[in-house]
Amino acid sequence: MRRFTVLFVLFMIMGCNSMATRKQKQMATDTFKVYPIGTVSKEDGHTYLVIDKEYLPALMGLERFSHVTVLYWFHLNDTPEKRAVLQVHPQGKKENPMRGVFATHSPMRPNLIAITRCKILSVKNNIVEVDKIDAFDKTPIIDLKN
Amino acid sequence: MRRFTVLFVLFMIMGCNSMATRKQKQMATDTFKVYPIGTVSKEDGHTYLVIDKEYLPALMGLERFSHVTVLYWFHLNDTPEKRAVLQVHPQGKKENPMRGVFATHSPMRPNLIAITRCKILSVKNNIVEVDKIDAFDKTPIIDLKN
Repeated sequence: MRRFTVLFVLFMIMGCNSMATRKQKQMATDTFKVYPIGTVSKEDGHTYLVIDKEYLPALMGLERFSHVTVLYWFHLNDTPEKRAVLQVHPQGKKENPMRGVFATHSPMRPNLIAITRCKILSVKNNIVEVDKIDAFDKTPIIDLKN
Repeated sequence: MRRFTVLFVLFMIMGCNSMATRKQKQMATDTFKVYPIGTVSKEDGHTYLVIDKEYLPALMGLERFSHVTVLYWFHLNDTPEKRAVLQVHPQGKKENPMRGVFATHSPMRPNLIAITRCKILSVKNNIVEVDKIDAFDKTPIIDLKN
């Protein structure tokens, strides 16, 4: 009986590990992981890109540019239902005929990546002030490019 | 002794489950999931964006446009080590002084998203032919925009 229980425990442990490994493998092949690198912050008429301090070295030299391309995540649409929407009325106007989301820049799309170009006002440590951005306060930022 | 073993097995099962739940919760809050929606295919001097058939409805209307913005994943750099690189010599040239990756469009960056603009030659079913793309054959495509 005791031998049987020990074997059972061993199988349980192996089972848990193999399930976890399988899940990780599936994740690795079927999806890519995107980490937020900062957050949009709107305060008293100012707009800031607050970059996480661990990414401070990645901002070196940005102050020399007049503009920056900001990639952010449409986090309010991050549900399986909204990500399954493949056709929309452009600009949300019913009078615009339905169109595939890949022929629009709708915030409804399988991968919730937004691209916008902003004018840089200043870069101070990990905070980039821009003139404005078409994103809500607290929106996760996922990349900056130049 | 038997009671002890039963308890031990129960704790093992609970432990495994709670670890998995914690991991899922952490994943959900700290990262976003990006699904490949197609693949770059280069054949006999032609360049195709082969979109997965499940996303065919999302292409409706794209044929009316002359150009498309293609987002793809720098999949060859998808390792923790490469994603931790925060400064590079722009264009990979040592004579260019080091700069933060957020002030470049280097393929080394925390989130491996590439943006490029392509001229559309044709749209046939789920296949968009473009004149050229600065991506390797078999690169995963993650979004198209207009």
